[in-house]
Amino acid sequence: MLNQQYTNMLNEKDIIFEIFNYSQKRAKEIGAENVYDFSLGNPSVPAPSAVRSVMEEKLETLDPLSLHGYSPSLGIPEIREKIAADLNRRYGCHYTASNIFMTAGAAGALAHALRAVSNPGDEVLTIAPYFPEYKPYTAGAGLKLKVVPADTDTFQVPFEILEEMLTPAVSAILINSPNNPSGIVYSTPTIRRLAEILTRKSEEYGHTIFLISDEPYRDIIFSGTDSPYIANYYTDTITCYSFSKSISLPGERIGYLAVNPDSPYADRIIELCPQISRTTGHNGAASLLQHTVGDVCSMTSELSVYENNKNLLYQALTEYGYHCVEPGGTFYMFPRSPESDSMTFCKRAMEMDLMLVPGDNFGCPGHFRIAYCVPEERVKKALPVFRRLAESYR
Amino acid sequence: MLNQQYTNMLNEKDIIFEIFNYSQKRAKEIGAENVYDFSLGNPSVPAPSAVRSVMEEKLETLDPLSLHGYSPSLGIPEIREKIAADLNRRYGCHYTASNIFMTAGAAGALAHALRAVSNPGDEVLTIAPYFPEYKPYTAGAGLKLKVVPADTDTFQVPFEILEEMLTPAVSAILINSPNNPSGIVYSTPTIRRLAEILTRKSEEYGHTIFLISDEPYRDIIFSGTDSPYIANYYTDTITCYSFSKSISLPGERIGYLAVNPDSPYADRIIELCPQISRTTGHNGAASLLQHTVGDVCSMTSELSVYENNKNLLYQALTEYGYHCVEPGGTFYMFPRSPESDSMTFCKRAMEMDLMLVPGDNFGCPGHFRIAYCVPEERVKKALPVFRRLAESYR
Repeated sequence: MLNQQYTNMLNEKDIIFEIFNYSQKRAKEIGAENVYDFSLGNPSVPAPSAVRSVMEEKLETLDPLSLHGYSPSLGIPEIREKIAADLNRRYGCHYTASNIFMTAGAAGALAHALRAVSNPGDEVLTIAPYFPEYKPYTAGAGLKLKVVPADTDTFQVPFEILEEMLTPAVSAILINSPNNPSGIVYSTPTIRRLAEILTRKSEEYGHTIFLISDEPYRDIIFSGTDSPYIANYYTDTITCYSFSKSISLPGERIGYLAVNPDSPYADRIIELCPQISRTTGHNGAASLLQHTVGDVCSMTSELSVYENNKNLLYQALTEYGYHCVEPGGTFYMFPRSPESDSMTFCKRAMEMDLMLVPGDNFGCPGHFRIAYCVPEERVKKALPVFRRLAESYR
Repeated sequence: MLNQQYTNMLNEKDIIFEIFNYSQKRAKEIGAENVYDFSLGNPSVPAPSAVRSVMEEKLETLDPLSLHGYSPSLGIPEIREKIAADLNRRYGCHYTASNIFMTAGAAGALAHALRAVSNPGDEVLTIAPYFPEYKPYTAGAGLKLKVVPADTDTFQVPFEILEEMLTPAVSAILINSPNNPSGIVYSTPTIRRLAEILTRKSEEYGHTIFLISDEPYRDIIFSGTDSPYIANYYTDTITCYSFSKSISLPGERIGYLAVNPDSPYADRIIELCPQISRTTGHNGAASLLQHTVGDVCSMTSELSVYENNKNLLYQALTEYGYHCVEPGGTFYMFPRSPESDSMTFCKRAMEMDLMLVPGDNFGCPGHFRIAYCVPEERVKKALPVFRRLAESYR
């Protein structure tokens, strides 16, 4: 008997993937330059050239037995040390290597964080709009994902509903700022208030509610945006990071989990991580990649194209009459759909060869996601199509 | 509340790790050359030089956006194609790319195979001596691991007990040949008989019993050993492979899962794999590593040192009076302990700075594992210690 749970998952359609497939098909029919694909969150700027030179240097200078050998189950100590130092330099924290666990991307980090601080049957809260993969991530850990509905005026945290939903069954809150799909960055007042509520509720319930902060977009912040380092505001924070977006290595599956050193559970959480790996088949991040990010963790790709695209799109779309909360980072934007059914809207866009993703899967219907990690030219060519699309609703 | 299951796992001592730690401590005290460490299964020969040149070539010739970009959830199609072709060339099978799923090592492959063909609560049979990580691998999938006791005269399969234990609750049999820790390779008659029993029992119970074949040591076979390619003998076989041992890349976490194309479930099992990844945080093998193994999958490291070490050890230990089944492959040997409590025996060895691993954790007490993936010199220097150790029991 094949597995029933995973077989059921096959029946849920992956809309993003379907749109992308249609886009590929259209590209063959009418030429890629005539398809305005904004469906995928795949970095459009290459990794810094240092990635290549560092890899070549490691291949040249390190003994292959050591370079490609098993790393300790927590990751390579010197690399964890370098990552801690980089975080401390950037954000004024005081991590040490012992607070860092190397993972295969943010997905790996989240899989460990969720399992470490909860027990099967616990609830995890997230806030709409949210990354759809949080559903399988939590389901795989035996947890119940509860979604706090979006504040669609600001995409900050709707605190009143959050407080209501924050029952004693909740073991952790899972947030994503800068946010996929809204591009919004939680402000310092938002994070302060969230921390205050979590502290108060943890005391009231007599157990710690952990904050799991999913931060793959942390380095893509637009000018003038207030972007607090979240772990600095709440002691029991686990930060999940990936080098996918900041240095454009999404396929290399390299990231880490960092536990706030002030958490009384810091050491224990890190100790649990390798045990969790043993049950999921994770068994560490690739060693060459660990060695590489140790040397480039302070760098980023040339990220300015994303802010530039955001400016072009935000200005034009607002002018065309779309309602949109201005992103503070990422390479996403999440405007309100001109008709309440954003599926129908995205279908109409698709007929104009404009590939957008409906907000339903992000827990926020009536909106659509634009992934503008694309060449500037594609944005410019797409603007008239966005205009025609808006006009078709007048 | 931190997780109870993983906290409990912390209390189980990892004996191999403790021995290795003690060995490191002793190396500092008396010099590494005076410690005879045979505790870890870490390859002692470097990766073929082609690994470096292929990596350098990929870094030089491929667009970094494509080289480091997201790969499809099943793995990169051309690489899967190359692996299928290599398997067909070696073993006369007829895999296609659609039967291959790229994983982060054999642990990743096993995590997917176990989850795909079973449902929580099912039983999985394995045969002693067995790799101790099968316990967390199966527990993580919600399965019950049942261990068929070893036939300590041959370390082949004890069929009578296996048949008794093969109840309708069993969804899969998990085998490891060439075997860690015994070094034994299941012979063609063994595999034929196993296939016959699985076919008969599957028919009797009205559901397929899958064979999950864990084969990280497949390429380390000593001369004259009968080493059938297991999937050729049973249709519903899932082969789990890692490049850790054959090309000495254990830290790079790269491997694959291959489903026998003749299985009526072949397509569905591969379809389930990405769904499983979504729940465990696996999300693919590192893309640079996928590109690399595509070009070197037909190669091996210079593996002859393992056979040479085996010959030295087997001949000497037999002469000293140890009872030992001669390995047909791997870099392990699993002699009978001169006293029934192999923990006590290994402690006595440790006092002579000889690091061996007791068989208890492998489901086979009264034996000990020698991991001879070490320089030949270490073997030669250790032989007199093995002799003194044997003599101490006279």
